[in-house]
Amino acid sequence: MTKQELLKLYRDYIACLNDQDWPSLGRFVSIDVEHNGRQLGVPGYREMLEKDFEAIPDLYFNVERLIADPPCIASRLRFDCTPTGRFLDLEVNGKTVSFAENVFYECENGKIARVWSVIDKIAIEAQLRLSDKPGDSVRIPNGDRR
Amino acid sequence: MTKQELLKLYRDYIACLNDQDWPSLGRFVSIDVEHNGRQLGVPGYREMLEKDFEAIPDLYFNVERLIADPPCIASRLRFDCTPTGRFLDLEVNGKTVSFAENVFYECENGKIARVWSVIDKIAIEAQLRLSDKPGDSVRIPNGDRR
Repeated sequence: MTKQELLKLYRDYIACLNDQDWPSLGRFVSIDVEHNGRQLGVPGYREMLEKDFEAIPDLYFNVERLIADPPCIASRLRFDCTPTGRFLDLEVNGKTVSFAENVFYECENGKIARVWSVIDKIAIEAQLRLSDKPGDSVRIPNGDRR
Repeated sequence: MTKQELLKLYRDYIACLNDQDWPSLGRFVSIDVEHNGRQLGVPGYREMLEKDFEAIPDLYFNVERLIADPPCIASRLRFDCTPTGRFLDLEVNGKTVSFAENVFYECENGKIARVWSVIDKIAIEAQLRLSDKPGDSVRIPNGDRR
């Protein structure tokens, strides 16, 4: 798999997610795809994503930064979205939050086979603390872990 | 900067951190280095790392996964360590925890100039919940965001 092929696969995969085109998901992820060490397969992976869109109706995957080194790719995703209820055990409840997800992918036979994702929960917590003060949704550019 | 040079820079940088060789830090990070959008410079970056080692005396950076595409590199770091008190606003208090950090780096003039890091706080929370049950430190392989 060349770097160009890998980048095209990834961009098409992200477009598939943003279109919620679930019947096409199996074109991009492997039949036995793993996510953070759990083997989900295509149906489990689809279910995970469908739940995300259920919890966050305006979910949209923005690729902010991409590092490709076949067969692996790393992506920094940016989300500006509005979870309607609890999200990651936080009382977001319709506040608009902005956060990143740094994700590593390993491909096999032209499809995503393994995913290691970390979501910046710390950034969301910081925004919720700020938004407890008078005013509405508050965005800060990045999480600060300390 | 070739891929080999980038990988060497990164491995030497990680060795510098693990050795707590602070006088050498400026060989690897740029004079105006930024971390998660904050311009720290070498002294501020050093101070951040020194505080980490103060809070976590057995801190050790294990590189689990590396994706290099000059001038950028992405690293999945693995920590098995024992924060002595509160860590990321969690009452860790001497429990041994295992967690990942997915980090992106951009280099300029042969040094790390910008860093975007996300720590898997969700994995630590899950381990603390488990360790509230009878027994001592509990490790699970990965965070699960849902």
